[in-house]
Amino acid sequence: MFDLTLRRAVKRRKALRRKASPVAAATPVAAAMLDRPARMTGREQMCEHALVDRDLNRLLFDYERTVRSRFTRIVEVLKRISTYQHDENFIGRARQLAREQLGFDLPTQVLEDAWVSGLDLSTLHSRCIFSSLKLSVDNAQTEQIGWRQRLPLDENFLRSCGYHTVDISPCSDGRLQGVGAYVLRFLPGPNVRVKGYAGALFNVEANVSDWAEREIKRLSGAMVDGDRLNFLKIAVYHFSSSSPDNHGCAAHGSNDRQATEAALQRLCELRSAIDRTFGTGAVPDVLLIGVDTDLDALRIHLPDGFGEPSAHRYFETAQIYRDTLGLSPEAARVHIAETVAVAEGMDDGSQGTDRMHEGMRRLVLALAEANLSQIEYVIKHHTGRYKTIGHDEEYIIAGEKLRPLQLRNLFYLAHLNTMEEGAPDMDVGIDIFTKLNAAHGLPVPVLVHFEYDARVPKSRERAIARGRRVRDAIKARYSDLAARGLLNCAIAVSERGGDERCTFVADNAVDDH
Amino acid sequence: MFDLTLRRAVKRRKALRRKASPVAAATPVAAAMLDRPARMTGREQMCEHALVDRDLNRLLFDYERTVRSRFTRIVEVLKRISTYQHDENFIGRARQLAREQLGFDLPTQVLEDAWVSGLDLSTLHSRCIFSSLKLSVDNAQTEQIGWRQRLPLDENFLRSCGYHTVDISPCSDGRLQGVGAYVLRFLPGPNVRVKGYAGALFNVEANVSDWAEREIKRLSGAMVDGDRLNFLKIAVYHFSSSSPDNHGCAAHGSNDRQATEAALQRLCELRSAIDRTFGTGAVPDVLLIGVDTDLDALRIHLPDGFGEPSAHRYFETAQIYRDTLGLSPEAARVHIAETVAVAEGMDDGSQGTDRMHEGMRRLVLALAEANLSQIEYVIKHHTGRYKTIGHDEEYIIAGEKLRPLQLRNLFYLAHLNTMEEGAPDMDVGIDIFTKLNAAHGLPVPVLVHFEYDARVPKSRERAIARGRRVRDAIKARYSDLAARGLLNCAIAVSERGGDERCTFVADNAVDDH
Repeated sequence: MFDLTLRRAVKRRKALRRKASPVAAATPVAAAMLDRPARMTGREQMCEHALVDRDLNRLLFDYERTVRSRFTRIVEVLKRISTYQHDENFIGRARQLAREQLGFDLPTQVLEDAWVSGLDLSTLHSRCIFSSLKLSVDNAQTEQIGWRQRLPLDENFLRSCGYHTVDISPCSDGRLQGVGAYVLRFLPGPNVRVKGYAGALFNVEANVSDWAEREIKRLSGAMVDGDRLNFLKIAVYHFSSSSPDNHGCAAHGSNDRQATEAALQRLCELRSAIDRTFGTGAVPDVLLIGVDTDLDALRIHLPDGFGEPSAHRYFETAQIYRDTLGLSPEAARVHIAETVAVAEGMDDGSQGTDRMHEGMRRLVLALAEANLSQIEYVIKHHTGRYKTIGHDEEYIIAGEKLRPLQLRNLFYLAHLNTMEEGAPDMDVGIDIFTKLNAAHGLPVPVLVHFEYDARVPKSRERAIARGRRVRDAIKARYSDLAARGLLNCAIAVSERGGDERCTFVADNAVDDH
Repeated sequence: MFDLTLRRAVKRRKALRRKASPVAAATPVAAAMLDRPARMTGREQMCEHALVDRDLNRLLFDYERTVRSRFTRIVEVLKRISTYQHDENFIGRARQLAREQLGFDLPTQVLEDAWVSGLDLSTLHSRCIFSSLKLSVDNAQTEQIGWRQRLPLDENFLRSCGYHTVDISPCSDGRLQGVGAYVLRFLPGPNVRVKGYAGALFNVEANVSDWAEREIKRLSGAMVDGDRLNFLKIAVYHFSSSSPDNHGCAAHGSNDRQATEAALQRLCELRSAIDRTFGTGAVPDVLLIGVDTDLDALRIHLPDGFGEPSAHRYFETAQIYRDTLGLSPEAARVHIAETVAVAEGMDDGSQGTDRMHEGMRRLVLALAEANLSQIEYVIKHHTGRYKTIGHDEEYIIAGEKLRPLQLRNLFYLAHLNTMEEGAPDMDVGIDIFTKLNAAHGLPVPVLVHFEYDARVPKSRERAIARGRRVRDAIKARYSDLAARGLLNCAIAVSERGGDERCTFVADNAVDDH
C-alpha cells in the first residue's frame, strides 16, 4: 500500500519540479515546496506526517510568538513615546504605554532627563531589550509548561540511551539558539547543557573540565546507574540550503565543508584529550550534527563502532521527511531505520564491526523522528522556510546561556569565562550586531551572564566579579563602539539549578580578589 | 641528661640576651643569634643540631650558588662589554666574553647594531636573563642530582602519609619560590605542584579543576592504592620577623594576621566548594603554613580531626630548633612530637576527638624536622639571616612555573591562565620590578610559560597560542612600561613530564582559534 503512495509521491515531486517557475520560487512557501516538495494530496493540500506532534508544535509556536512579540514591539512603542517627548505629562504617558504594551516600567531617570537634550532612545532601547528578556525569564515556567511536558527527548529517554549528560555546542549564531528544545526536541534540564562557540569550535580544555566534573559524580557513585551511563558531547554546525554562500556559518566563511570538518576535528580532539589523559574507558561519546538553518532540518553524522564520528557517514532528515510523508507511523519508522542503516555503510565496507552501539542508535533514531516535527513546524508556522534566513538577533549573551530562555535568532551566544580566551567568539557577534544595530544607530545590547552555585561559599560574589571583569574587557575591546554610545552592557547572575534567575547587578567597578 | 642540657640552653640564652648591644645587633649573624640564639658550646662555637642533614645543605648551597652566579654575573659582564662597544672587533670580543663568563652566546643582531646608536643594553640584559634561566633549566638534571637523592619528603613518603598529590600555593613573592625543595624539603616531582598567587590567594574554581583531574584518576583505579590516598592542598603565607611592617606580604600590606586569615579562608572555601559539589567523601586535606622569609622558619597550623585548619592552632619550627639544639636525635623527635601535641590542644578543650589524623601527623612531624635543616642552612650559608630580606628577583614568570628551576628570590611567580583573571597577581609583580629594575633603567623581564601534554593532540599549539595571548595582554596592561622599552616578554613552553623544557617560541601574532 505505501509502495504505491511512495511511487505517487515521487511522480508528484517530479511533476512539481517541472512546473517550477521563477515567480513560484520567489515566495518562500513555494520555494520550500519545490526544493523540498512536501507530499501533496490530490487537492494540493499538504498531507500531515504521521510522526509529527502537531499539538507540541502549536504549543511551541504560541510560545515563540509570545516571546518574540515582546521584542518586536519595542521599536514601535519607543517610536510612539518619542513623538510626545516634549508634551506635558510625558513621563506618565510614556510609563503607562510601556506598561500596557511591553509589560514593564521604563527607567524614570531617562524619561526625566528627556527635556534637556531629548529622549535618550539609544539607552531606552537596550533597557527595553534587557527588561523583555528578564520578563521572558520570569514567565518561563508558566509559559513553557505546555510544551515542556511533551518534548520527547527527556532525561529518562536519554538515560535509556546510556547518557547521564548531554553537552551541546552549537555555533554562537542566533539561528542555532533554539536548537535544544525546537530543532532537537531535547527537554531542557540540568542534564542538558548548551554552550555556543563561534563555528561550534568549543574550547577543548574547558570542555575536559566540564566532563571531569560529571565524571567524578559518576565514578564516586553519586549518580544513579552511573556505571552504565556516559557523557555525550554534541557539536552542531550549520549551513543555509537556499543561500549557502551568504547565510552559512560566518566563522567558517559560509564554507559548509570547512564547518563540518572543523567541528568534527574538535570532537576528535576532545575524545583524544580525555582518552590520552584518563585512559580509554573514560572517553565520552560524541555526535556531529549539521542544521540547515533555513528549514531546521538535520544532517546527522553517524559514529562507528569505536565511537569515531565521520564527515561522510550521515543522513538528512529533510530527505526522510519527504520520503515518509503519507506513510503510517510504523512504515515511516522502518524507513528511518533503513536510512540510518544505509548511511552507516556509507564510509567503507567493514560492516558489522563498525556499527554504532545500540544506545547511540536509539538516540539517533529518536532525533531523526523528533526533527520531523520541527521540519513541519517550519513548514506550517514559518511559511515553509524561515522568513529571515539570516541574522536577526536581539542581543548578545557573553558568559553562560540563560537556561530558561532559548529561541532561534533571539540572541547570539558567546560562551566564555574570559574575554581573553573568548574574544574570537565575541568578535563574530559584535560584527553581526554592527550590521544589525550599530549601522542603524542602535546600540548593541550585551548581557554578561554567569551562573553560580549557591551551595559553594562566595560563588555568587565570584560570579558577579567575573561578570564585571568580562564587562570591562568587552568595553575595552570594543572601545570605539562604547565611545559612540553604541554598546550597552548589563551584568546578571543566576543560581545554577535554583530560584534566582537573571538578577541584574549594579554597575560597579571590578572587585579585586 | 637532656633536661640538664635544656636548662643550660635556657640559661645561656638569657645570658646572651642580657649581653645584646646595638653594635652586635647590627650584623646579621649576631642579630640572628640574639633573636634566636643557637645553642653554643663553652668555646662559643655553634654546636650542630642532631636532626640536620648537613651534606644535603652543602649540596643545596652549591646548587644555589651555581644558579645565582649565572644571574649576578650578567650586569658585570654587560658593563665590561659596554666599555669597548666602539672598539674594533667588538662583536668577537663581546661574544667571547659572554661565552666564557655567562656560558651562552649573545644575540648577534643586537651586537651588530651597536655602532649606530650604541649598544642596546636594555635588550641585552633581558636576553641574558632568559639565556641564564634556560641554561639553568638545561643543566638542572646534572646540577640537582646530588640533592634530589637526599630530600626526605619524596613521593613514597607522601604516599605513606596518605597523599597522592601535594598542591602548594605559596605567595607569588620571589622569597617563597624555593619553598618546595628548600624550605619544606619536598622532592620535586609530578606529584608535587607549585602554583604561586599573590597573597597565596589561589583561584578556587581553577583549583577545583586541578583537584578534579586527579580525583578521576583516583576514582577510576588508574592510581595505585588510590582508594586510601587523598589530595593535599597547602597554602603558604609569609612574614618577616625582623622587619614585619616592611618585608611581609605586599598583597596583604605586610599585615601578618590578614595574610594568615586570608589564606586560611581560601583553604576553607576550596574544601567547601568540593564538599558541597561532590559530597563529603571527596574533600581534600588542607594545610596552612607560614614562612618567616628572613630565616625560612615555619609556622605550621594544625588541622583538627575534621580536617579544618585554624589560624590559632600552630607551632613554630624556629622555637623547636632552639629548644632541641644539642639534644640527641631521639630526644629532639620526642620534643617535636610534644610540641605538636601541645599545639593541637591550643584551640579549645575538646581534646581527643579533634586530633588530626595519623597521616597528617606523620607529615607535620616530618615537615618540622626537615625544616630544621633549612633553618641551619640559613644560619650557616646565609649568615644567620638572609642578607637581602626583601625583594631581589631576577624575572617574572607569568603562566605556569618552570618545574626544573625553583629558588628563593630568583623569580616572581604569577600562576595564571589568563591575564583577565590573573591581573591582580601580575600587578603586584610589576610593582615590585618597577622598583627593582625599571627605576634603574632596566627592563622587567617576563617569561610567559605554559606546559602542554604531548599525548593530547594540538596541546602544544594551544599552549603557544595561550602564551601569545597572555603576552599580548601583559603588553596591553603595562603599555606605559612597554612603550618606554622597560618590559621584555618572552614566551616558552615545556612538555608536562617530558623532555622538552622551556623552549622559546617565535614572537608572532596571536593565532586565532
